[in-house]
Amino acid sequence: MSLATGLYLDIVRRALDEDLAEAGDLTTEACIPADSRSVAEIVVRRPGVVAGLEVGASVFRTVDPEVAVELSAVDGERVEAGKVVGRVEGRSRSILTAERTALNLMGRMSGVATATAELVDAVAGTGAVITDTRKTMPGLRALDKYAVRMGGGRNHRFGLHDAVLIKDNHIVAAGSITDAVVAARARVGHMVKIEVEVETLEQLDELLTVGADVVLLDNMDPDTLGQAVEKVSGGMVTEASGTVTLETVRAIAESGVDVISTGWITHSPPQLDIGLDFVG
Amino acid sequence: MSLATGLYLDIVRRALDEDLAEAGDLTTEACIPADSRSVAEIVVRRPGVVAGLEVGASVFRTVDPEVAVELSAVDGERVEAGKVVGRVEGRSRSILTAERTALNLMGRMSGVATATAELVDAVAGTGAVITDTRKTMPGLRALDKYAVRMGGGRNHRFGLHDAVLIKDNHIVAAGSITDAVVAARARVGHMVKIEVEVETLEQLDELLTVGADVVLLDNMDPDTLGQAVEKVSGGMVTEASGTVTLETVRAIAESGVDVISTGWITHSPPQLDIGLDFVG
Amino acid sequence: MSLATGLYLDIVRRALDEDLAEAGDLTTEACIPADSRSVAEIVVRRPGVVAGLEVGASVFRTVDPEVAVELSAVDGERVEAGKVVGRVEGRSRSILTAERTALNLMGRMSGVATATAELVDAVAGTGAVITDTRKTMPGLRALDKYAVRMGGGRNHRFGLHDAVLIKDNHIVAAGSITDAVVAARARVGHMVKIEVEVETLEQLDELLTVGADVVLLDNMDPDTLGQAVEKVSGGMVTEASGTVTLETVRAIAESGVDVISTGWITHSPPQLDIGLDFVG
Amino acid sequence: MSLATGLYLDIVRRALDEDLAEAGDLTTEACIPADSRSVAEIVVRRPGVVAGLEVGASVFRTVDPEVAVELSAVDGERVEAGKVVGRVEGRSRSILTAERTALNLMGRMSGVATATAELVDAVAGTGAVITDTRKTMPGLRALDKYAVRMGGGRNHRFGLHDAVLIKDNHIVAAGSITDAVVAARARVGHMVKIEVEVETLEQLDELLTVGADVVLLDNMDPDTLGQAVEKVSGGMVTEASGTVTLETVRAIAESGVDVISTGWITHSPPQLDIGLDFVG
Amino acid sequence: MSLATGLYLDIVRRALDEDLAEAGDLTTEACIPADSRSVAEIVVRRPGVVAGLEVGASVFRTVDPEVAVELSAVDGERVEAGKVVGRVEGRSRSILTAERTALNLMGRMSGVATATAELVDAVAGTGAVITDTRKTMPGLRALDKYAVRMGGGRNHRFGLHDAVLIKDNHIVAAGSITDAVVAARARVGHMVKIEVEVETLEQLDELLTVGADVVLLDNMDPDTLGQAVEKVSGGMVTEASGTVTLETVRAIAESGVDVISTGWITHSPPQLDIGLDFVG
Amino acid sequence: MSLATGLYLDIVRRALDEDLAEAGDLTTEACIPADSRSVAEIVVRRPGVVAGLEVGASVFRTVDPEVAVELSAVDGERVEAGKVVGRVEGRSRSILTAERTALNLMGRMSGVATATAELVDAVAGTGAVITDTRKTMPGLRALDKYAVRMGGGRNHRFGLHDAVLIKDNHIVAAGSITDAVVAARARVGHMVKIEVEVETLEQLDELLTVGADVVLLDNMDPDTLGQAVEKVSGGMVTEASGTVTLETVRAIAESGVDVISTGWITHSPPQLDIGLDFVG
Repeated sequence: MSLATGLYLDIVRRALDEDLAEAGDLTTEACIPADSRSVAEIVVRRPGVVAGLEVGASVFRTVDPEVAVELSAVDGERVEAGKVVGRVEGRSRSILTAERTALNLMGRMSGVATATAELVDAVAGTGAVITDTRKTMPGLRALDKYAVRMGGGRNHRFGLHDAVLIKDNHIVAAGSITDAVVAARARVGHMVKIEVEVETLEQLDELLTVGADVVLLDNMDPDTLGQAVEKVSGGMVTEASGTVTLETVRAIAESGVDVISTGWITHSPPQLDIGLDFVG
Repeated sequence: MSLATGLYLDIVRRALDEDLAEAGDLTTEACIPADSRSVAEIVVRRPGVVAGLEVGASVFRTVDPEVAVELSAVDGERVEAGKVVGRVEGRSRSILTAERTALNLMGRMSGVATATAELVDAVAGTGAVITDTRKTMPGLRALDKYAVRMGGGRNHRFGLHDAVLIKDNHIVAAGSITDAVVAARARVGHMVKIEVEVETLEQLDELLTVGADVVLLDNMDPDTLGQAVEKVSGGMVTEASGTVTLETVRAIAESGVDVISTGWITHSPPQLDIGLDFVG
Repeated sequence: MSLATGLYLDIVRRALDEDLAEAGDLTTEACIPADSRSVAEIVVRRPGVVAGLEVGASVFRTVDPEVAVELSAVDGERVEAGKVVGRVEGRSRSILTAERTALNLMGRMSGVATATAELVDAVAGTGAVITDTRKTMPGLRALDKYAVRMGGGRNHRFGLHDAVLIKDNHIVAAGSITDAVVAARARVGHMVKIEVEVETLEQLDELLTVGADVVLLDNMDPDTLGQAVEKVSGGMVTEASGTVTLETVRAIAESGVDVISTGWITHSPPQLDIGLDFVG
Repeated sequence: MSLATGLYLDIVRRALDEDLAEAGDLTTEACIPADSRSVAEIVVRRPGVVAGLEVGASVFRTVDPEVAVELSAVDGERVEAGKVVGRVEGRSRSILTAERTALNLMGRMSGVATATAELVDAVAGTGAVITDTRKTMPGLRALDKYAVRMGGGRNHRFGLHDAVLIKDNHIVAAGSITDAVVAARARVGHMVKIEVEVETLEQLDELLTVGADVVLLDNMDPDTLGQAVEKVSGGMVTEASGTVTLETVRAIAESGVDVISTGWITHSPPQLDIGLDFVG
Repeated sequence: MSLATGLYLDIVRRALDEDLAEAGDLTTEACIPADSRSVAEIVVRRPGVVAGLEVGASVFRTVDPEVAVELSAVDGERVEAGKVVGRVEGRSRSILTAERTALNLMGRMSGVATATAELVDAVAGTGAVITDTRKTMPGLRALDKYAVRMGGGRNHRFGLHDAVLIKDNHIVAAGSITDAVVAARARVGHMVKIEVEVETLEQLDELLTVGADVVLLDNMDPDTLGQAVEKVSGGMVTEASGTVTLETVRAIAESGVDVISTGWITHSPPQLDIGLDFVG
Repeated sequence: MSLATGLYLDIVRRALDEDLAEAGDLTTEACIPADSRSVAEIVVRRPGVVAGLEVGASVFRTVDPEVAVELSAVDGERVEAGKVVGRVEGRSRSILTAERTALNLMGRMSGVATATAELVDAVAGTGAVITDTRKTMPGLRALDKYAVRMGGGRNHRFGLHDAVLIKDNHIVAAGSITDAVVAARARVGHMVKIEVEVETLEQLDELLTVGADVVLLDNMDPDTLGQAVEKVSGGMVTEASGTVTLETVRAIAESGVDVISTGWITHSPPQLDIGLDFVG
């Protein structure tokens, strides 16, 4: 699935504004002749899954529509260290001015994709789907969620606005799981899914009586997860969350849950090291 | 040093827009009575240095000016796991709607501050200053740089617009270090500092002839750094960069450099785990 | 369900900008003394269901935070002609400057609510739910959808972004209903509902084989709708659309469909006539 | 008279934002192959006067600059049911994503133009001009006023900022018609027209003494209007308003007034039904 | 006539953004204790007419809502050198951060008002009105036009959007004065004034035949202006423009024209020197 | 040094919005046929240094991308009265709509450049550099500072955010010059220059003890300036400010200061008279 251009161009412009403010690129304008031209390669320095190549390319074009960027990889592609994923050609000043902003975006997005892919690999063959959460970088949610898809994951809801997820605090305030679900069903439209978080098998029993589209099994060990999956027995989609790491994710997946959601892939993924080398 | 309110409120509004879009918080509006009120505590779950508490508090107030937030820690404070850093009181709906956005911001900023503090601690007593780079999260540079200060670091330039940093590619395009520095001096105003990146002691020799305010010693081992510091001998501020990690930073500092800059503290710091517990 | 303040304040400011531009309110500033104060009543001149009262009140406060607005009705309330729904007190200049923009918003939103309520009344007792579509006024979707809720309807999806609705053209491009549904299931997350439009009972048969969350029965007469409902027999939510008017809606509802969606309530509802009378 | 591009592109972007939010068009991206191409026709399904064709075309181009739109009618043209007014060719995804927003804008604008044209037709031969009011859709005033011109009407003032209109409440606050007019003349520039609303012939007598550019004869029956026109006798432009409908407008026009203004054409016009048919 | 708050707050925020960018006020934050408080006076250092005092005050409040500003003069007041027009009290940091932006705005606006007042004084007793033109500072038109009013002038049209002014190039393109006026009358609404520029008495003769609301007598010497006024003899408002200076304006006014318009008061007025003195 | 496109396009759009608002260019649309085409020349009517030619050209292209603008001078060029600096060709309507906004921008920027050049000429041969201050036109700082460079001056800091300038009020609040400088050094990064304002030679003595990058010698007569320069003797950059006029600037420069800063070139420069002549 693709990413709308308009959406990321605002992010690109904001990032460039941070870097250029009113005075612009002092160094480049002082030291580089206006007519100097260069060719540079975008190189991934560590193995990983790339994402945001087109976003990064748009930074160069935003700075200067006459800079040409030719990509030699596609978002979602696994690459080795040293892989040249793009070639940039045009005014040296423009390339230097855009460089850092472009690399910051590509490095971040590829970092998210790579972290996601590691978890996806770890659960290979189990049928479990890896999804993100709402623990994304403020202002970058669309890019983060896109990068998750490029890493082989799927997206959980995009925000508070597109699905119902009843968590512990909602249940307390509503009185009970049953009350909360009944209230939700009475008010939201027929196109909105309802998910309910449970922390114990007892809570799950209550939920099974009233029903929902998805159950979030929070912080359960693999054994308990297995029992929960058995209880649900296909009546709802099952989702596990809590303490999902590269070490724990396989066992969680083998419990039979449909979906595993994790905040780590968007709140703390190491960026993928991507650089720009001038080659001419 | 403080952080301008106007600046982060735009970031807060954008983050809330991502979460609420046009339809708002479906769950809360469906399940939580409009007149329900709650008290919640903001709890840091791992030890670290907090930052962004006031930014996080502003999320609750942006959602609902009648929510009261009382902070019990200050930005830059080192805290233990379990530390309650704030208390939120008001309409349950408002608290629940603001929760994730507030935590995302505080977790990110505290993550940056904590990573910075780890490096600052590691060089304690050497006199070396830890600074950031321009490898910040797109759209969040002001918050990232503020968090670095809260972690005990100082800021490198804010962007391309406020100082000159002549790097390898500029030198190639300008012809030589000398040509680049002369060009910069002839054009920028008297309030702008000029820094030049060198990768070898030979380049440093050339730079010492023409002079600059700061020299960036890139990717040198501690020994070479030590020789470089000796050569400079106070004539310029010395800055080391490249492969700065918790393991390497002390040796770099002991070479005698004035400043150590690192991208890691802003491009890949683990977030600090901060949660919201309803207590009433 | 409520309406986020931040969201409608942008609409209010844009509407005021249209009216005031750079020069402001020429008449009021020329003719009305700066210290003149007035009291005015907001009066509904035709029976209907009011909506947007708080939005309208915010126009006065945006123009002048010292204008006091006291509402005497709530959104969703059915009122008779002549009903005073609010009282405005403050500087005469401010009240006059805000008047038209406030009335335009309240008149539009109450028009949508009233049109919705007429359809809801017409299907009373059948169990059918009335919903809107995406045929809303450009720039006012959140207000339109809120007004539909105030009129007793529920909301269909808010946009292309929060649910899947596979229509005739998608089916053609995808190859078949089955292909389209399979493609959707393979890509969207577990929190997204999938609806499919069918125009014949044959298409419905195909859909029943592959399954979906909701079926949109487009432009079928009540008899055919009845047969479709019987075929579906609870396996999916059933929604009817096409030629929904005050005259036809009851028969459609009696076919047993769960949901009836209509564009008329948002693309062509007559506004509800609301005026402002100065009383002191 | 034309419509500035910059102005409506903001409206188009806002409308697309409502529909796409952060997640984009889920259905199209999941079900339609990225390289699928289509041809579609824009068809007017009921007779009327079209307006907003270029605005609608710009929606497709905003979504995807490579979509080609060829219009086969011009704004202001009267068309029969079934008239093909445009042809769209390009990526299927782009066409499907833009479709609803484009149709919403064209349907609204053509609805305004058609309603205006009905009134213009009804007064044909009388010399009376049909104008709009400030009762426009919030955020869409420029489009609404343009559509009125396309329907054969003319525009009243665009807002509070470009002309003086002294109404009953201004007169009360200023003391008298004479005081209000004198105050206005003493303050506004020489390029601003002054209109005064009167409800009785006695008020008209007072106004005739002090003078104005235009008199608004509010809610008078045709007979009284005729007497008013005679009294004014060319000394001011005469404008009638209040209870203007398709049934009453001819009689009002025959009273001899120069201008008839009506809110209905912008606050409650039925949209003109326009659809998109895929033809290849 | 007053100035809308919303309008100038955008200008204030933009001006502060230029000064603070992402890094804020480095000096104040480094050197001034956070709890230091000060009192300062706003002093006009040269005689003139002040304008923009409230706008300037809003800068302090925008930086810090807790800064108190008490004004001791009103916009439009003539003041002597040394006049204290306001007193500012609050956090020293906030006052220092806001100072330059506040003074820039007040100095500019008072400069415009003072220049206007000089021309108004020069024509005292002649009955001629001084007006501005569209030669205002880009982005500051509303403030410039307000300051003209504060200096005793009146406003010409605010822009291309609120009145018709047919100049030489329009006449050439339209064919003749008569053709241009006829075209304008056939298209613009009844609330729009029409002005025509003439450069010779022959052109004036043609215009008198077709008629207009206002005639712009461009670059005529006082004698010719006198003849023109006599020809017009009250049938249109007469406006003189071209080479209006403090030296020439009286003679122009004595020709009997109604209005004298000049670009100088907004495109080149010297700013009025206003400073901030810390007094405690 | 060049000027970023994105930066001035926002200024251009805002200026056009002021002129066009919602209704557009009434005169042109009413009087000029849509297919009329014209050629016009941009002519400088007084000798001076031009700046903003590209900015002005962008106004025409923003109004209508099909208008062709060919420049025949470059920013920073000294021109005689009557010099044609550009040629515009395209739709007559577009040229007329853009004309005033383009001329306002070019006239302002060339006015700043010309005023700067006069001061630069006056100090020719002394080695003194002319710089601007922060007394720029609100919203136009980047254009003002660019125009100063085009006039042969250099830029002082762009705002409060990019350098430290400790002035009298900071010194009072900090306790002493020494305290203020020590505080600044302890907090700002190594890329930020520190300047201190002194008003007496005694203050200079104190500053020489603690040191800084630049000293601002405020309001000193040429003799005192000479003594100050001698005292500093190359240890800091010396900058003079206060009462800098065309008459005084040479004597100030001959005192030996490195830099002379002046607010006049941006807060009160007469605009350079530039017009548009239709030639076909």
